[in-house]
Amino acid sequence: MKLYDYLGAPNPRRVKIFAAEKDIALELINVDMRKREHKTAEFMAKNPSGKIPVLELDDGTCISESVSICRYLEAIQPEPNLLGTNAVEIGLIDMHHRQIEFELLSQVGVSWVNGPIVAKMGMVEPIAAAKERSDALVNAFYQRLDTELATRPFIAGERFTLADITAVVTIDFATALVGLKPDEAHSHIWAWHKQVSARPSIAAD
Amino acid sequence: MKLYDYLGAPNPRRVKIFAAEKDIALELINVDMRKREHKTAEFMAKNPSGKIPVLELDDGTCISESVSICRYLEAIQPEPNLLGTNAVEIGLIDMHHRQIEFELLSQVGVSWVNGPIVAKMGMVEPIAAAKERSDALVNAFYQRLDTELATRPFIAGERFTLADITAVVTIDFATALVGLKPDEAHSHIWAWHKQVSARPSIAAD
Repeated sequence: MKLYDYLGAPNPRRVKIFAAEKDIALELINVDMRKREHKTAEFMAKNPSGKIPVLELDDGTCISESVSICRYLEAIQPEPNLLGTNAVEIGLIDMHHRQIEFELLSQVGVSWVNGPIVAKMGMVEPIAAAKERSDALVNAFYQRLDTELATRPFIAGERFTLADITAVVTIDFATALVGLKPDEAHSHIWAWHKQVSARPSIAAD
Repeated sequence: MKLYDYLGAPNPRRVKIFAAEKDIALELINVDMRKREHKTAEFMAKNPSGKIPVLELDDGTCISESVSICRYLEAIQPEPNLLGTNAVEIGLIDMHHRQIEFELLSQVGVSWVNGPIVAKMGMVEPIAAAKERSDALVNAFYQRLDTELATRPFIAGERFTLADITAVVTIDFATALVGLKPDEAHSHIWAWHKQVSARPSIAAD
């Protein structure tokens, strides 16, 4: 299986960590986003959304969307389980994961798109008011997450799941490239972050 | 099982259609969003995100996020299958569903939040440039969707899935309340829309 990747991009990083947890080997193909290789006709035939990552199976089938790729990998290699083993757990892990995606990752994305690095690329006209709103939403969510992580060791409860992968990747990206590092006072976030970052799948990434 | 609902809101509508497809009965509890009942302490204890829908199980467990509720329902009642039956199908249905969620529903959401109805409620200061950008993205996605629906009968391929539910609910909401009706020239979208809207689960809703 080939994974169309771009080093440093948060979404393929999610898939690489997920695959490493399951000890699934992926052949990495670099798609140079600075050269807009993800917008070529050849690449758009693999993913009409023009985004990485894309997983290409040996028969040529292409699955895009990081989480959809993770669902495929969970189905072919169920252990260790990262998405839930019974109906309630499947629902609750997905719920926590979606709250990270929609209330944190999506807002970090708005701040990124309207921030200085993307502006310098000249692809999108930044909207300062949109960034101001998303920055505030990210910081409010960090506050909530810190409170929640005081009551449980992992994002979705008692064990490591996809929700932790998305959360750590989002926070690392927000810290490194979007100027949205969680406040040092959020001790529960940082204790959780230290613990998950020590996992071989994440430390090696 | 109780579903915390609000008539006319798109997200609980997705769950109600999904449950109807599986012939699962839900006790509907109306949460009057105009009265901010979804932001009371009592409701926030069920869902700290302060959003509907929430599914409350008989033991008091609360699952929020429409799609997470659907995953729970699929696990307790696998037939008719709406999320995929093998690894490749699970991946591809999820991929098509996420493209609808992230490239259509999320952008319709931005146009809604920055549009005149929400502005009249006085809760959010509208950002005209953000709405202009999301309006354009929605219309570009409609164009793409029309092209894709020329090649297959349903959003995710040959059969009806959750991706169709999210797409029809999004388009109905965009048409009725956000001023983003797909152009009449998008004949493949409208042929698909007519077909799925005739399903008992959707027609009765």
